[in-house]
Amino acid sequence: MAAKLHEECGIFAVSEGKTPLDVVTACYYGLFALQHRGQEGCGIAVNHSKNISLYRDLGLVSQVFTKDVLEKIPGGSMAVAHARYGTTGDNNRMNVQPLVINHKKGKMALAHNGNLINDFELRDELESKGSIFHTTSDSEVIAYIITKYRLQTSTIEQAVVKAMDEIKGAYSICVMTDEKLLVARDPRGFRPLVIGTLGDRFIFASETCALDTVGATFLRDVEPGEVVSCVDGELVSDRTHCKKEPKSLCVFELLYFARPDSIIDSIPVLNARLRAGSFLALEHPVQADVVIGVPDSGITAAIGYSRQSGIPYGVGLIKNKYIGRTFIQPQQGQRDTGVKIKLNAIKSTVEGKRVVLIDDSIVRGTTSKRIVQLLRDAGAKEIHLRSSAPKFLYPCYFGTDIDSSENLMAYKYTDDEMKSLLGVDSLGFLSTENVTKLSDTGIEGFCTACFSGNYPIKNNKTKNKFRLE
Amino acid sequence: MAAKLHEECGIFAVSEGKTPLDVVTACYYGLFALQHRGQEGCGIAVNHSKNISLYRDLGLVSQVFTKDVLEKIPGGSMAVAHARYGTTGDNNRMNVQPLVINHKKGKMALAHNGNLINDFELRDELESKGSIFHTTSDSEVIAYIITKYRLQTSTIEQAVVKAMDEIKGAYSICVMTDEKLLVARDPRGFRPLVIGTLGDRFIFASETCALDTVGATFLRDVEPGEVVSCVDGELVSDRTHCKKEPKSLCVFELLYFARPDSIIDSIPVLNARLRAGSFLALEHPVQADVVIGVPDSGITAAIGYSRQSGIPYGVGLIKNKYIGRTFIQPQQGQRDTGVKIKLNAIKSTVEGKRVVLIDDSIVRGTTSKRIVQLLRDAGAKEIHLRSSAPKFLYPCYFGTDIDSSENLMAYKYTDDEMKSLLGVDSLGFLSTENVTKLSDTGIEGFCTACFSGNYPIKNNKTKNKFRLE
Amino acid sequence: MAAKLHEECGIFAVSEGKTPLDVVTACYYGLFALQHRGQEGCGIAVNHSKNISLYRDLGLVSQVFTKDVLEKIPGGSMAVAHARYGTTGDNNRMNVQPLVINHKKGKMALAHNGNLINDFELRDELESKGSIFHTTSDSEVIAYIITKYRLQTSTIEQAVVKAMDEIKGAYSICVMTDEKLLVARDPRGFRPLVIGTLGDRFIFASETCALDTVGATFLRDVEPGEVVSCVDGELVSDRTHCKKEPKSLCVFELLYFARPDSIIDSIPVLNARLRAGSFLALEHPVQADVVIGVPDSGITAAIGYSRQSGIPYGVGLIKNKYIGRTFIQPQQGQRDTGVKIKLNAIKSTVEGKRVVLIDDSIVRGTTSKRIVQLLRDAGAKEIHLRSSAPKFLYPCYFGTDIDSSENLMAYKYTDDEMKSLLGVDSLGFLSTENVTKLSDTGIEGFCTACFSGNYPIKNNKTKNKFRLE
Amino acid sequence: MAAKLHEECGIFAVSEGKTPLDVVTACYYGLFALQHRGQEGCGIAVNHSKNISLYRDLGLVSQVFTKDVLEKIPGGSMAVAHARYGTTGDNNRMNVQPLVINHKKGKMALAHNGNLINDFELRDELESKGSIFHTTSDSEVIAYIITKYRLQTSTIEQAVVKAMDEIKGAYSICVMTDEKLLVARDPRGFRPLVIGTLGDRFIFASETCALDTVGATFLRDVEPGEVVSCVDGELVSDRTHCKKEPKSLCVFELLYFARPDSIIDSIPVLNARLRAGSFLALEHPVQADVVIGVPDSGITAAIGYSRQSGIPYGVGLIKNKYIGRTFIQPQQGQRDTGVKIKLNAIKSTVEGKRVVLIDDSIVRGTTSKRIVQLLRDAGAKEIHLRSSAPKFLYPCYFGTDIDSSENLMAYKYTDDEMKSLLGVDSLGFLSTENVTKLSDTGIEGFCTACFSGNYPIKNNKTKNKFRLE
Repeated sequence: MAAKLHEECGIFAVSEGKTPLDVVTACYYGLFALQHRGQEGCGIAVNHSKNISLYRDLGLVSQVFTKDVLEKIPGGSMAVAHARYGTTGDNNRMNVQPLVINHKKGKMALAHNGNLINDFELRDELESKGSIFHTTSDSEVIAYIITKYRLQTSTIEQAVVKAMDEIKGAYSICVMTDEKLLVARDPRGFRPLVIGTLGDRFIFASETCALDTVGATFLRDVEPGEVVSCVDGELVSDRTHCKKEPKSLCVFELLYFARPDSIIDSIPVLNARLRAGSFLALEHPVQADVVIGVPDSGITAAIGYSRQSGIPYGVGLIKNKYIGRTFIQPQQGQRDTGVKIKLNAIKSTVEGKRVVLIDDSIVRGTTSKRIVQLLRDAGAKEIHLRSSAPKFLYPCYFGTDIDSSENLMAYKYTDDEMKSLLGVDSLGFLSTENVTKLSDTGIEGFCTACFSGNYPIKNNKTKNKFRLE
Repeated sequence: MAAKLHEECGIFAVSEGKTPLDVVTACYYGLFALQHRGQEGCGIAVNHSKNISLYRDLGLVSQVFTKDVLEKIPGGSMAVAHARYGTTGDNNRMNVQPLVINHKKGKMALAHNGNLINDFELRDELESKGSIFHTTSDSEVIAYIITKYRLQTSTIEQAVVKAMDEIKGAYSICVMTDEKLLVARDPRGFRPLVIGTLGDRFIFASETCALDTVGATFLRDVEPGEVVSCVDGELVSDRTHCKKEPKSLCVFELLYFARPDSIIDSIPVLNARLRAGSFLALEHPVQADVVIGVPDSGITAAIGYSRQSGIPYGVGLIKNKYIGRTFIQPQQGQRDTGVKIKLNAIKSTVEGKRVVLIDDSIVRGTTSKRIVQLLRDAGAKEIHLRSSAPKFLYPCYFGTDIDSSENLMAYKYTDDEMKSLLGVDSLGFLSTENVTKLSDTGIEGFCTACFSGNYPIKNNKTKNKFRLE
Repeated sequence: MAAKLHEECGIFAVSEGKTPLDVVTACYYGLFALQHRGQEGCGIAVNHSKNISLYRDLGLVSQVFTKDVLEKIPGGSMAVAHARYGTTGDNNRMNVQPLVINHKKGKMALAHNGNLINDFELRDELESKGSIFHTTSDSEVIAYIITKYRLQTSTIEQAVVKAMDEIKGAYSICVMTDEKLLVARDPRGFRPLVIGTLGDRFIFASETCALDTVGATFLRDVEPGEVVSCVDGELVSDRTHCKKEPKSLCVFELLYFARPDSIIDSIPVLNARLRAGSFLALEHPVQADVVIGVPDSGITAAIGYSRQSGIPYGVGLIKNKYIGRTFIQPQQGQRDTGVKIKLNAIKSTVEGKRVVLIDDSIVRGTTSKRIVQLLRDAGAKEIHLRSSAPKFLYPCYFGTDIDSSENLMAYKYTDDEMKSLLGVDSLGFLSTENVTKLSDTGIEGFCTACFSGNYPIKNNKTKNKFRLE
Repeated sequence: MAAKLHEECGIFAVSEGKTPLDVVTACYYGLFALQHRGQEGCGIAVNHSKNISLYRDLGLVSQVFTKDVLEKIPGGSMAVAHARYGTTGDNNRMNVQPLVINHKKGKMALAHNGNLINDFELRDELESKGSIFHTTSDSEVIAYIITKYRLQTSTIEQAVVKAMDEIKGAYSICVMTDEKLLVARDPRGFRPLVIGTLGDRFIFASETCALDTVGATFLRDVEPGEVVSCVDGELVSDRTHCKKEPKSLCVFELLYFARPDSIIDSIPVLNARLRAGSFLALEHPVQADVVIGVPDSGITAAIGYSRQSGIPYGVGLIKNKYIGRTFIQPQQGQRDTGVKIKLNAIKSTVEGKRVVLIDDSIVRGTTSKRIVQLLRDAGAKEIHLRSSAPKFLYPCYFGTDIDSSENLMAYKYTDDEMKSLLGVDSLGFLSTENVTKLSDTGIEGFCTACFSGNYPIKNNKTKNKFRLE
């Protein structure tokens, strides 16, 4: 389990239209805007004269889509792109999306953000009938289920709507066929998905920041349960699965995953984080000299805390922005001897001060502990740690990579034990109650399962996600 | 269509055993020995503690398996490797083998050399039942068919034997499961497949030269129709499909594809080529001063021609051995102005001489024409072109890339027209009759369909090989 | 001329010592900490058994020093590293440092940060005597001058002290010989240079943040004019050139170049920026709703402005942190149509608001103009631009890349013209007077030539920096 | 010391002219033709509008000059290219040529093939006057000496002629300035250098095969001692250093280094090798069944032996042509267990036969020993080893990499000992007398120092070639 939790993907797609547009380049920029959602690998599938070409590989957008590679990808009329969050292992190039497959009625490219909870059962059933699987991803399961219904229905839209009866869990998907581009969002809307316009074209993206990146105008969110396809330059919507179930947007989209300049289901992400900071200041006040945030995602909540509390906001930690995937980690021994490679404390901000330190969440606690030590070394007199997420107690089955309670600090230890282990003077978490009030316009409907254990969909199995590789 | 014809693959595999062996490194060397059979891409699938890890990519063995990559591949108990011949296109990384799939009863790695003739029908039938395809290769069809029978039978061997009832055409395949390693050769034995021993381990390879490379001892050829698996350190053979049909070894394996140091179905390749040269000298004698061969594969037949005719053998053409896949071709204009990059003639050998020029085959004639011009420029007085293969008249459906008669020079032109187009003083082809006598021990059973039109298996469809990508 | 001004390098070196340390890895981490000072190329020269091995290339530290490369560099007793800021051109791998040369008395590695003003004259004189130059950098000139004196003196320290009589301008250099490691800082101290300790070893670095990175303890700054060498585990100092001239630290080190967590000549960089913001608020007050900074280096001054003015600090602009050197720029047409790739505005922060926008400087004005437009598009009602640097009016000859007044916005236009061109409601620059008061402990001695035209060293020639390549 | 001896470089250059020509592409093809002369690194320096751009790196032509790199090199009016033979070490990118330097009177690109014998003295003298060296190559010494005289003379030609008074040893050099292209060959003509024409342009190259490659016509060899420059479309020759000393062409150029299709100083290389084989048959006859050659350079001498002796020529050894620089060598243990990766024997050629085996030379004997073992394993009854070079007894100071007698088999052992160590039935070397008769037109003037110890130039020092790195 990672020290931080991670999202599992970003989607970007461009529909057909008369507006002149290099759809591959648009996808390239769209992927850059969504890179924070997935850094393991990325791909672009482009439809050119009803053929689908695919290029995908492990690595960041800048590593995968070099000038050389971009030049080799044919231009096309529409395209779908995907950025994938990565687990470890060298073996998983097969899992990079979009997935492009051939079935009886044609070709299909599929990009998926989320996590099914019944993929194991569906896979088992498919295998019993002779299906073979090339990947370990639930996306291939979705592709099979859609194909199954595609053979029985006259349109891809109908196939997707029917498939949604079978697939359970969190998913925002985009499907491109020889002819069409469509998206679907699961009935509870766990993961975001938005629609923008660029001339007469439509853009689908996981976040609005990707629309801004290509100069598109935000139109609306895809509704939970909705299937939206582009037909003759119009959006056609199927709402069969809408409003049957309450909305369950993952609250971590607001607190941590999404970019601060995105607006998700009408909630500006930056505002949600400022509000998280304000709630924290109200719930866990303290006498202090300065409020600092852990970069990058603790910064905004720190500003919110400062505004509410009146304690000045300061820059207390600097992150080295050049450290990326290829960085060679120091060995264990070095790590313990005061090496400050990724983060450094600013002495002039914290020396002799009572510091309020805002982090976005506490998962295993190891990172927080190291940061606290950094600040102590820099002379902080008191450290009051505040987490803008509630206590993380339960595993998530809907698309983050926390799959058991086992290593969750808040699950294993009491508050006093945590305080002592982290070396802080006080410790406070946002309450689960307030985390549902992050919208400043009263919007509701969040999944808080990882804090509360109230899972919006029943899930009675231990998942075995990685069987093949 | 390429100017030369091309083989489509090489297989190499190592069974379990107590003999200490780094199976991945053995595969690496095995692939080097079989690189001539396929230069598009290559891969190694290794079984470690019943998990199968796969690494494959486009490129030569030396490009794909760098030190870095080899270090990342886990060691294992057995492994299967594949070198693939490449059609053009950047998109076909998916088609690189081995194919590794997951089915109801476990995992399976598959490496395939050959070409099915009913893959289109089989694929169509599978798709009608909801199957999806990730690749355009017939290997994925074979994987599905084996999986189908695997669900109905208790062993992988039985599944392969039953699958062989359905799949038609040329194939030498290797299958590795969690537990077992096995190979199968089609009932007519179009493509070679040999067994060697290395201590208590078995090695399967497309050619004996790969056995030599790893220090293994040749045991025997896999029989046409035979399924051979390694069970508890013993070879277990199923001969259900043996001897029902006559053997049809592709004669180009002897003339062109295989390495001269290999022995295929008891025929030393080098000897077969010497005999081809001798037959040519007998069928198409000429008064001349020197016999030269087109490097690399015309050399041996030239020596054979020289020995039979008494005309001295000489080195008349030099090939630049550094020109590989990444070489940037001269543009059309440059090519016409005497540029001699890949091949150069040796003036001192040919100037003022009557030259017998031996090439392994004449496909489109463009290469031969350019070589003749090179020799003329170097001062050759007469040029007598001899092809150690008969006239190429019919497409091949069994694993070479000549898929229509359309551009075949011998199909389009009369002998006189060819002579004139190629600019030679005389022209002679090995007869189809003699091409079946290339073995010096009277071994028979060759496919000569591309010369004679007598196809060993009926094939009543135009194939549409590349549908997906 | 670039839109922003740029520093020209960072130095990092590790002395001999008994404290166990992998000096190459230490340099690797040191370079990461100094990457912001130079992103064109980097190198490490390591002394192993009195041999000097060098590895250097164009690219970021993470691109040049891959795992593969690091493994090939031999371990050693001491090492010197360099990160170089890059001008355009593919040709300049030769210019990447350290420079390693061979002279009569041995080997020498040289790393240099700064810019000579008499390198043209020195080079000319050297060439007249038959010297040849491989690079276009003034570092090679320094190497020649040191070598000249090395032949006349008995120690490298003496040679460097004498060389300092000849070389004029801004320089912080590090020299490693077969036997010794030493550093020198020009008599006016234009560029920073610090000393740290790590066990019994000494670390030299351009900034203190690099000391923190490797867990070293800050000892002191190298004094302007000082030559410091490591002899038998002790620091030996030569102060021949000290205190003859007043100090002239480049004020941009504080405002822009250095990392906020560094302390330069006793001035914490973050504090200097907060003070710049406070001075701005005092000099150019305005009624507004929110203060925002241009990331990354305008952020701190914005916080300072907010604190002084009482106007709330907010996050109004988000920078895409994944866009690096290999990013493929949008074409001109795309750039004009609202594409927001590198920076995006946050609507919820600025919409309907009177915004104070703090940038670190205004050079050509093109970037500022684009940012103002972004904020207008996001709904900002008023925009009050404040530059935490004074008006940029004169070229710099001491190590930044502004080599003429030609494109400097403040030089070309009046205040009113600038306001209009930038599209802002008001515009204010920090005064030159206050820029010399950035230290909160009254430390003085800054170079403000680019604002005031008062050059600390006379320079009566147009420089011709790039003659060779 | 390597198992085989190695040449140290190839030169290719294109003069100015009106004939339309992409000079960079011409150099690219020229380097491919000369790749056999040097595989460590390569470079192209191009003159565009009197600026010289340089691109060079470690690696083969195909690795260094990728499409991407070629596109970045500016077009130009003339160019000079170099392929370098490589010693080991990662550090020597600096040594890759051409060398481009700046001196008082302009720029100069220098490409050099050969080896000075007084470079140590010259370097020492230069260093005593303050010169610094970036490389360890004698090319930099040559550049300094030419520069020295360039300051005293009015033309580059005069400078080169004067420099030739000082530099001693083997050299074929090409110099390109802002204005001119010229070549010089040392007074004894150790290394080849030829002139060709392509329209009104001149091509200089180490071998004629490079002229053929670009479609140029051979004009003549550069004479030993001659300086040839291109002035206004004419060749201008300075013969100051011609005919003062007898010619001393390295005999290994004919036997081993040069490509068989090249003609060196009027001697067709292929013929020289055939004659070497014939002489061997006359000097060391034997009763045998087949003559085989060690690929690639033993092949032609084997054909010569066969023709003279009447014993049939056969193909007995196959070399894997895919094994290149990045191939990962088997470890010691594997190498001993019958692994046949680079070379394999052909059983059908040698089994039960008395074999004459022709190799081009025997240096340390290790390779020969392994080949003999291969043939024994394949069933050869008798093995009669013949070397087409005489016994290698003395070090070479003129450009090959045998720098001491220490590991030379023929120096250390008697004939009987050698026979026994190599495991052969008989052993014969070409006599030094006959090696001077390799020309079939009676041309004389060879350096046979490595066989006879008669050094054409006195050389009384142990060279210390690699001081810097």
